[in-house]
Parts: sequence; C-alpha cells; structure tokens
Amino acid sequence: MTFHYPNGKKFTNNKDNKVSKKVDSKSSISYSNRGMTLEEDLNETNTFYLETGRAVIHKKPTPVQIVKVDYPKRSAAVIKEAYFKQASTTDYNGVYNGKYLDFEAKETKNSTSFPLSNFHTHQIDHMKRVVDQHGIAFVIIRFSSTEEVFLLPFTVLYSFWTRMEQGGRKSISKKELDDHAFTIPLQYFPRLDYLDIVEKHLV
Amino acid sequence: MTFHYPNGKKFTNNKDNKVSKKVDSKSSISYSNRGMTLEEDLNETNTFYLETGRAVIHKKPTPVQIVKVDYPKRSAAVIKEAYFKQASTTDYNGVYNGKYLDFEAKETKNSTSFPLSNFHTHQIDHMKRVVDQHGIAFVIIRFSSTEEVFLLPFTVLYSFWTRMEQGGRKSISKKELDDHAFTIPLQYFPRLDYLDIVEKHLV
Repeated sequence: MTFHYPNGKKFTNNKDNKVSKKVDSKSSISYSNRGMTLEEDLNETNTFYLETGRAVIHKKPTPVQIVKVDYPKRSAAVIKEAYFKQASTTDYNGVYNGKYLDFEAKETKNSTSFPLSNFHTHQIDHMKRVVDQHGIAFVIIRFSSTEEVFLLPFTVLYSFWTRMEQGGRKSISKKELDDHAFTIPLQYFPRLDYLDIVEKHLV
Repeated sequence: MTFHYPNGKKFTNNKDNKVSKKVDSKSSISYSNRGMTLEEDLNETNTFYLETGRAVIHKKPTPVQIVKVDYPKRSAAVIKEAYFKQASTTDYNGVYNGKYLDFEAKETKNSTSFPLSNFHTHQIDHMKRVVDQHGIAFVIIRFSSTEEVFLLPFTVLYSFWTRMEQGGRKSISKKELDDHAFTIPLQYFPRLDYLDIVEKHLV
C-alpha cells in the first residue's frame, strides 16, 4: 500500500503524545477533510484495513433492477435500461477477527440534530436481525458542517427509533449523540478508525 | 412465511424417521429440482433462514458501473448506460450465531469434474482473507446434470487452486469432491440446508 502524505510530512500518531499541547500552525498536520465525502473516507479506511490485514469490510454494490441489455458484437454488454432499487440491507459488512460487522453510514447538513428519516425501516429491521444473530451492528453519522463523525451502536439507535415510533421526536439531538455515541477522530491512516471503537466498546 | 407444497402433501422431516425404508412411488415426495437454478434454491434457503431467525445471509447485488442516468419529470430515475463490473468479492455473505459466513456458488454442466476457471483470482484472494480473519468461507458447487450439490470448505478448494497454480490439473475431479466435500441434500424447507453442514463441520 502506498501512503500519500499531502504535506510531505511523515504521519505521526498523536495518541501517545499528550505532553506537547503547543500548536504550531505552520508545521502542525491538518486533519481536515479536504472535501472528501463520508463514503470516500470509509472506502479509504476499509482499503487500509484490508491491506494491513486488520479486517475484510466492503461496501455493497448499489442494487439496480436491470431491464434491458444490449450485446453488441465484439464489445462488452451495455445495460440500456435499469432502475435504482431500494437496498434491503445496510451498505457495509464484513469480518473482523471472526466476528460479523454490519453498518450503515449517513451524512447530514443539519448542525443540531440527526433526522431519523435517513434510515429506512428495512435497514432497521436488518440491523435488528444482525444483533439478534449476535453480529455487531452500528451506524456512522457525519455532520458535514462541523466534520464531526459519530459511531452509534445499533441498540442505542434502536431506542431512539422506538421513541419515534411511539410518537416521540423524529431525530437524535446533537446532545444525545454527544452522550451516547462515540466520536471517531478524523486522521490520515486510516481516515476514520472505527474499528478502534468497535474493539474497545462493541466486541 | 408461506409454505408451498407442490404435491399438496404436508412436508415431513425425514431426519428422525429412519425406521421405514419402504418407498411408495405414488406417495413419496420428490425432491427433484423442478428446473430451479442454484441461485434460486439458495435465495429460497436464505429467505427461510431469515424468516426462521436461523441466520442473516444475503446475496450481494450485481456490481454495475453506471455511466448515464436520466431524471424524467414526475418519474423514477432511469439508468440509460451502464456496464457489468467484475465482482471483487464473493456473492453471498452474512452472519450465523455471531460468526461471519462468506461463500460463492457455481453450477457446471460437466459431469465428471468441476473446472476451477469458474472462480476468479480475486474471489480466491477474498476468501483467503476471510479465512485469515477467522471467518468461515466455502463454495457451493452444483452439477446440473445430476442435481448433486457439494459444499467445499475454502481451505480444501485452496489446495486444489494451488495445485493448478503449480502446473497441476485445472479442475477438481468428481472423485475428489466425493472424498473432500460435503453433499448438501436437496429437500423442501430449506431447499439446500448448507448451514447444517456449517454447524457440524465448519464452526
């Protein structure tokens, strides 16, 4: 795997380096997102996990209903008519140390709360089944305005979902996420080290 | 879940019914495939597992590269140009009792051997990674001429794959499958109870 260092500096892990609090604006490394989407960050992270042998996690292909296919002579088949289908599961799944991992990732432009309408009922049903089957299920939520990323275990999400179904609020407040979700720091390699949180809190 | 009984008879599980060996050709239940493909049999089986809470296993969508999409007014987006992409993983994965399961299913019209060209190098690489990550990986092979279905653990498949890479034969003989793979009997519910073999031999 080739590591890219946008500023030419070697990446240093700041986790065990709590002594120096001084920030040098010229030499400090910026972890800002450089316009990357949550999906891009997660794809880079999953590639990093794959190539370092830490986990095997893939994004599922977008489900499409294929209606018409042309088979031109001497060239590849061309799909001429197809429609997007609603996914019956979440977007990401895979294996980490023998365990089954399953998650959905969503971004919001809101800054004070995360609307539960971002999830479909069948995705909730799917994650419930995964947890019932002793798999590990969670969602990754990004607030694009602040670049904050949270990992929310499915069981907690499910309590907010149930609250909504019983007539309660249709979103999770930022405060509730601060209290019940885990923050995933944005860094270089991997971009979003969600497995670190899974290891510490969900296994 | 609705059970369909093609011959109007109640399905009886023959597992615990080893006393009567007499076969009445008129009343006996035929387990023949009725022209179903391996994929259809596996989809029915996975639906059965899902609805009985035994496992959560899905077939991944076919990966397509979408090039052109039309957004007609007042109707759904139409994909006007797209191409089939080669899958980077296997077709099926999911969770069974917390454990990660991953497999590929292939059918052959051959009757004496199974050609290894049915698998792509990246699928072998993927299953190798899954096993390294302590997941459960295998392939399901169907001989369409005889309707025989085998479950071959990845580690065994990998030894045949390595033999080919070292200049050996490019297929697995029927005899080798009889010796090293597990037969999955065709029945009504579920059609192909591969989890029974996973439970007994692969967990």
